[in-house]
Amino acid sequence: MAEQYKDELLNNVIPFWLENSQDKEFGGYYSCLDRTGNVYDTDKFVWLQGREVWMFAMLYNKVEKRKEWLDCAIQGGEFLKKYGHDGDYNWYFSLTREGKPLVDPYNIFSYIFATMAFGQLNLATGNKEYEQIAKTTFEKIISKVDNPKGKWNKAHEGTRELKNFALPMILCNLAIEIEHLLDKKFLDETIDTCIKEVMEVFYHPELGIIVENVTLEGELSDTFEGRIVNPGHSIEAMWFIMDLGERLHRPELTQKATDIALKMVEYGWDKKHGGIFYFMDRLGCPPQQLEWDQKLWWVHVETLITMLKGYQLTGSEECLNWFLKLHKYTWSHFKDTEYPEWFGYLNRQGEILIDLKGGKWKGCFHVPRGMYQCWQVLEKIKKDKHLTKRILYAID
Amino acid sequence: MAEQYKDELLNNVIPFWLENSQDKEFGGYYSCLDRTGNVYDTDKFVWLQGREVWMFAMLYNKVEKRKEWLDCAIQGGEFLKKYGHDGDYNWYFSLTREGKPLVDPYNIFSYIFATMAFGQLNLATGNKEYEQIAKTTFEKIISKVDNPKGKWNKAHEGTRELKNFALPMILCNLAIEIEHLLDKKFLDETIDTCIKEVMEVFYHPELGIIVENVTLEGELSDTFEGRIVNPGHSIEAMWFIMDLGERLHRPELTQKATDIALKMVEYGWDKKHGGIFYFMDRLGCPPQQLEWDQKLWWVHVETLITMLKGYQLTGSEECLNWFLKLHKYTWSHFKDTEYPEWFGYLNRQGEILIDLKGGKWKGCFHVPRGMYQCWQVLEKIKKDKHLTKRILYAID
Repeated sequence: MAEQYKDELLNNVIPFWLENSQDKEFGGYYSCLDRTGNVYDTDKFVWLQGREVWMFAMLYNKVEKRKEWLDCAIQGGEFLKKYGHDGDYNWYFSLTREGKPLVDPYNIFSYIFATMAFGQLNLATGNKEYEQIAKTTFEKIISKVDNPKGKWNKAHEGTRELKNFALPMILCNLAIEIEHLLDKKFLDETIDTCIKEVMEVFYHPELGIIVENVTLEGELSDTFEGRIVNPGHSIEAMWFIMDLGERLHRPELTQKATDIALKMVEYGWDKKHGGIFYFMDRLGCPPQQLEWDQKLWWVHVETLITMLKGYQLTGSEECLNWFLKLHKYTWSHFKDTEYPEWFGYLNRQGEILIDLKGGKWKGCFHVPRGMYQCWQVLEKIKKDKHLTKRILYAID
Repeated sequence: MAEQYKDELLNNVIPFWLENSQDKEFGGYYSCLDRTGNVYDTDKFVWLQGREVWMFAMLYNKVEKRKEWLDCAIQGGEFLKKYGHDGDYNWYFSLTREGKPLVDPYNIFSYIFATMAFGQLNLATGNKEYEQIAKTTFEKIISKVDNPKGKWNKAHEGTRELKNFALPMILCNLAIEIEHLLDKKFLDETIDTCIKEVMEVFYHPELGIIVENVTLEGELSDTFEGRIVNPGHSIEAMWFIMDLGERLHRPELTQKATDIALKMVEYGWDKKHGGIFYFMDRLGCPPQQLEWDQKLWWVHVETLITMLKGYQLTGSEECLNWFLKLHKYTWSHFKDTEYPEWFGYLNRQGEILIDLKGGKWKGCFHVPRGMYQCWQVLEKIKKDKHLTKRILYAID
């Protein structure tokens, strides 16, 4: 299985992006790739550009010093450096192929993935300019925590202030990503705050689940935003927390993350057709998201990682069983057996809804990161005879 | 059939909203009603408030002088007058149950339906204040035509300026709605401009279809926005144009609208599962809208109206056949046979995806307006022996 994830990463997914996504003329990456890898739209989404820089730099840093990976990361980074922001590190949402700004910097995730990109690129190259971009952008993010959308925020001030799960969740991950650039005390405090937000504010023990939005006081809100549950999002956060639990030598944190993840996967699993729902309403009200019942690649890939880490770190039998169940569903439904890379969007029944390999929201990120993560965790499991034996037994 | 549409309107749909949607305590209407009519969320969406005021005032003006309809319209209008705008007729997008602003006035459709509401309410009551609100708001709309989203517009100025079909399309309808409040010359010019925009700019004869976005010069754009086709939207616009063709005594305009509508329904019809797709990409690229293949109530209800008007006005056999085909699909899939009102959202296969009767986008509008329109057109057809005979023959 370790070999399967490694092989899929290195011989299927990564070559697909390396060959098809690089814009050799203008720099940066195409992310709109059809089933076979042809470019069907040339717009460039800054957050996906950042993710691809990060991915290739990370592989270079952690897997192998392949020149083609580093070159790919650097050319994307240079494109972003030149065109991705307004001169003051306010990162646009999207650009034309040539790099002209298309959509203004309303989205904090453009900033987040720019930080990750330049942090990882700095590690790969030692280039001080990349370090400075990562640091400056990270400071901008911290300054925007209370109102990430800035002037594009349409919520009327003072009526119903809610805070959203996405930012504290991603900050857990981001802080570690760029720890080499942060002051130790600041890093520790940031990690501490993020863990508290995720595990004590957005996780509601009386429900046993994580909600996407709460009041500023951390209370549940019986509104569309306050009722929404995104199982994949919560489950993804749990492997970030497990990583922190391991790093901080806090096994009780890892255990709690495992318990919550198990609860969420059970909650989000479609008992009728299999797969995990995209959105749910915690009170069972009609959801606002018309795509609520669709099965999305990233939800399933992230759950694979979480269940496998949960098994490796706690030995949980339930995690092992869920991992195997997800492994079967994910590989049989999302992997394209005729062309490289994976499908992204299935309908509730598990049929392909849209056959793109990349678009506005799917790029070179969740599939390769998931393959990498599962491969790495499986390598760790291989070193533990007891864990390995139980997997082999379960597969039998 | 005329009886069927009339009965559904007066004895099923309208009583549902009259009984379940009025907020007797704070005024205005709940629009979030579950399958049986229970309120599942109390937020009030200004554009849906406006639509419901319009609907009850219109029924009072055109069908019967029922006091309960007028009272219902007036109480909604008074709520909107007090809470729907910022004091300067900038209409919020949504409000709390009590009327506190929740989402700022970024959406031009809040203004559009406020104008329709107060125009119709002025007709019903003769109240001058309502007239003034409708007029002032209409002027605001006209002043915003070039940048309807105002400061909430995220498109970077100057890179790729596109214009959208929604506004000229709805202005066709809006101008006639409030013609009693407009200067004759201004009305004629507005109608003329709208017809030209819809039929000569957004309709592209080389493709035979209407696109949702074009460049400022009216050219096609090979971008996500420029490739998108929304069959239901275009087909709805065609009955607005037919109404104008009839009014202006321009049978060639009515004929052209009929031809385009026929082309669009053929284009949008799902040959595999039946029903009309929500979104399509005119070059067959993967669409950005994950809900692209869903079957929405309003698309089908509007197409019923258009096909029936096309038949009545031009005698087109194709329109008749499409009307009968749509009539069968729509009544068998969208009408709830156990509880009042109609379902709004089906998956591609035609199964119920979300069983709400009202929400953020579905209110007291398309179903009752469609029932009313079809009933009225069928009454006209009844007066024409030849048209009636052909329907009876086709049903046989």
